[in-house]
Amino acid sequence: MARMVNVNADIAEGWGAYDIGNDAELMQVIKSASVACGFHAGDPNTMHRLCMLAKQEGVSVGVHPGFNDLWGFGRRRIQMSTRDLEYMIAYQIGALQAMAAYAGLKVTHLKAHGALNNMAAEDEGYAEAIGRAIKVVDRDIIYVVLYGSAMEKAARKLGLRLALEGFPDRRYQEDGNLAARSIPGTVLKDPKVAGEAALRMVRDGEIVALSGKRIKVKVDTLCVHGDEATGVAVARGIRASLEEAGIAVVPLPDMNL
Amino acid sequence: MARMVNVNADIAEGWGAYDIGNDAELMQVIKSASVACGFHAGDPNTMHRLCMLAKQEGVSVGVHPGFNDLWGFGRRRIQMSTRDLEYMIAYQIGALQAMAAYAGLKVTHLKAHGALNNMAAEDEGYAEAIGRAIKVVDRDIIYVVLYGSAMEKAARKLGLRLALEGFPDRRYQEDGNLAARSIPGTVLKDPKVAGEAALRMVRDGEIVALSGKRIKVKVDTLCVHGDEATGVAVARGIRASLEEAGIAVVPLPDMNL
Amino acid sequence: MARMVNVNADIAEGWGAYDIGNDAELMQVIKSASVACGFHAGDPNTMHRLCMLAKQEGVSVGVHPGFNDLWGFGRRRIQMSTRDLEYMIAYQIGALQAMAAYAGLKVTHLKAHGALNNMAAEDEGYAEAIGRAIKVVDRDIIYVVLYGSAMEKAARKLGLRLALEGFPDRRYQEDGNLAARSIPGTVLKDPKVAGEAALRMVRDGEIVALSGKRIKVKVDTLCVHGDEATGVAVARGIRASLEEAGIAVVPLPDMNL
Amino acid sequence: MARMVNVNADIAEGWGAYDIGNDAELMQVIKSASVACGFHAGDPNTMHRLCMLAKQEGVSVGVHPGFNDLWGFGRRRIQMSTRDLEYMIAYQIGALQAMAAYAGLKVTHLKAHGALNNMAAEDEGYAEAIGRAIKVVDRDIIYVVLYGSAMEKAARKLGLRLALEGFPDRRYQEDGNLAARSIPGTVLKDPKVAGEAALRMVRDGEIVALSGKRIKVKVDTLCVHGDEATGVAVARGIRASLEEAGIAVVPLPDMNL
Repeated sequence: MARMVNVNADIAEGWGAYDIGNDAELMQVIKSASVACGFHAGDPNTMHRLCMLAKQEGVSVGVHPGFNDLWGFGRRRIQMSTRDLEYMIAYQIGALQAMAAYAGLKVTHLKAHGALNNMAAEDEGYAEAIGRAIKVVDRDIIYVVLYGSAMEKAARKLGLRLALEGFPDRRYQEDGNLAARSIPGTVLKDPKVAGEAALRMVRDGEIVALSGKRIKVKVDTLCVHGDEATGVAVARGIRASLEEAGIAVVPLPDMNL
Repeated sequence: MARMVNVNADIAEGWGAYDIGNDAELMQVIKSASVACGFHAGDPNTMHRLCMLAKQEGVSVGVHPGFNDLWGFGRRRIQMSTRDLEYMIAYQIGALQAMAAYAGLKVTHLKAHGALNNMAAEDEGYAEAIGRAIKVVDRDIIYVVLYGSAMEKAARKLGLRLALEGFPDRRYQEDGNLAARSIPGTVLKDPKVAGEAALRMVRDGEIVALSGKRIKVKVDTLCVHGDEATGVAVARGIRASLEEAGIAVVPLPDMNL
Repeated sequence: MARMVNVNADIAEGWGAYDIGNDAELMQVIKSASVACGFHAGDPNTMHRLCMLAKQEGVSVGVHPGFNDLWGFGRRRIQMSTRDLEYMIAYQIGALQAMAAYAGLKVTHLKAHGALNNMAAEDEGYAEAIGRAIKVVDRDIIYVVLYGSAMEKAARKLGLRLALEGFPDRRYQEDGNLAARSIPGTVLKDPKVAGEAALRMVRDGEIVALSGKRIKVKVDTLCVHGDEATGVAVARGIRASLEEAGIAVVPLPDMNL
Repeated sequence: MARMVNVNADIAEGWGAYDIGNDAELMQVIKSASVACGFHAGDPNTMHRLCMLAKQEGVSVGVHPGFNDLWGFGRRRIQMSTRDLEYMIAYQIGALQAMAAYAGLKVTHLKAHGALNNMAAEDEGYAEAIGRAIKVVDRDIIYVVLYGSAMEKAARKLGLRLALEGFPDRRYQEDGNLAARSIPGTVLKDPKVAGEAALRMVRDGEIVALSGKRIKVKVDTLCVHGDEATGVAVARGIRASLEEAGIAVVPLPDMNL
């Protein structure tokens, strides 16, 4: 049984005059933050602010690269060459490394955003392009991947450090993929229910799929969300549930991946 | 008398499907390249390609940050807070560091683009914001500044390495500022005339202003241009003139600044 | 004494996944809406939604053009050629005309945004560029201008219909310009105080400047704001105060300008 | 046999400081121009300039809408909701109508760009979204569609005017779709060969596919290209070939569609 786990969230997803999410509150619950880097969201100011806050809260920071699609918030699938994708990812890593220097922090993980994460979970070309960017820019960066995805394969093939990610506030299909948000009930709003799902993932290595079937899973990090009204409360429920069960919630670099 | 000098140019100023300038030819003449980083021009692909080319040609690379104004090609003055400016510069430095990693190169200088360079030459707030970004992200980066400008002052105040820049293919006013491009004859098109102006700057430490008056100058690096039809020929004339006079043309890091 | 006046606000200033302001509530208080057109804010979806809402609420719609500066929300001064500016304005007018077609509405006024409005208030070149765009695209569009500004002059010189604008929720300097937001107390938060200022402008043709001095003013339209927490309440106070005094609040085209 | 046909090209695909294609030369060969509207390429200045040139050359103008993807030049497939797409198209139509007003021209057709055109040829949702935008903004606009595509179906279903388009400088597959550019020889560079292909399309109603098989086709307009080095010469060859055979080359509105 796991004695520790990481809890992560996507943050810094504002842009200029626009704010979104509950970054400040969420930063008190999570232990690793994936920072938007100016392509689907985020700007140099939000990146700077969140790195400083991460330092203060003892949260590790990672890159949260997305498609170059601010209007679509990185949620639209874009077909691009894997070379273009790789360099676009490398660019975003470097940009965050500079902003993290303000806080004296190193960038320690990468978690892809939205449609890019979904496409890379299925498409080896995309998954490896992301991995190659990590390998060139800083091969110590931990590649956060969906368990069983093309990203997991890519990370292993490239010899990268990786963290398997679970989504305790979301319901799953039997095949291990997330059930679509559009299906009612697939986004958990009850802190207690989400907390139990988190514990089951970490302690028991299993998920109860929508169909009721139990599927095996291995998780190093649990993703929580700040963009739902209930997000922060659910995140708190997840962390409390883990800690009550004696599982330490730690930054990703402490997971010995 | 100076035994060596650097010759630099701005490159990588295309964007997506758009190409501009004569990067490949220019890279054979210069010894330091200032790479556009995606704000006024440049994209991850052009940055990658030019870093690889720089490696091959023995050219050192620097950041060429500009305003976030692709439509205006960074040539429009934009009034922004110095904090926003500082973080925007830091972001661009980091982005290029990542792309330079592909070529195994370090980013060794910073030269501001267009309206940003013009504003920072006059405005201490802007000049220091750029300097602070350098200091945080990599204090070894050489700040390329117009001789006698607010940028020179800022670099000295912040304790940064700096390179004084001259423009041998441009005519000057008596006060040491460049004469406006709109005045006929202020952009030199004759390789021999530009070569003589370069030699006079480096060897004699002087410029003959438009008025005929001689002004004192000190230069560590000479800027040439690839966006005029005659640019590459003029750049070749400048380099030939220097080398014939026994002055070595070297990358910026070899200038011992 | 004026028997009627218009009340306007800037709306549709979200972008993609980002929302800002209190458009739905504000639309029940105002009679004319200035719609952001995709340059400083706004996108085709927000423009469509607000035009439909305007139709439903009996609110007239106008263009709210801004600089091509989403990151700066159009609040940063940008130096551009007056020809570039003119075409950029014309483009935004046309874009809104298309979206207004969905609601069966005509675009009946233009009110410049943020830094563009501030610069055009002072600079005849900018003010006339905006006016020329109106004249070419639809000369029936009413140019909303600050009383006594370069925009008022430009509108008169070009023979355009114009509406003089007052800001009852803001304090003024003695010279008729708005006092900077950064000075405490210059943005009114009390619905009653703002209502009295509105009434004084419309009924008495005067403003009490920060210094206490009374200055003469003429207003056809009063601008209210939705981006402050207190904005909608203040807007309601202004409208109530006018209507209690027997002054009808009407859409701009009903003002017979 | 057809006594007349239209010849069109995509133009105004520069952006800010960037130029692309051979607009001025091409405008002397074609009779209808599809103007990029600021999303995949084009800006208010290029739109203005090309509308003025179209007026002077007797060329009709149409909208050339693309995805909001300047970096990808509109050549990357983007998955978006059909409502978002529809409003994005409407916006671009309106923007061009405003710029055409400078030249006293009406916008008389719409031809989608790049990946959007390819996706709409296959996908009824996309094809109809474009058609609905036309219907709301100006139902007289002619929808330029690939013969036999989902766009043709959408145009007929919505009761829109339509023009069937052929590509005489490109080779076709047996199924009537264009053969990929990446296959050598699929882009014709010889003016005479392209001229014969054009004549065969217009006079004989047929295409010889790559396989040698003859396929039936009906064309109202022939698309030529300015972005290949040989493009203008090929376009001239096509026009000469048609006119020598007694087929008039006319603007789209003269085709009585």
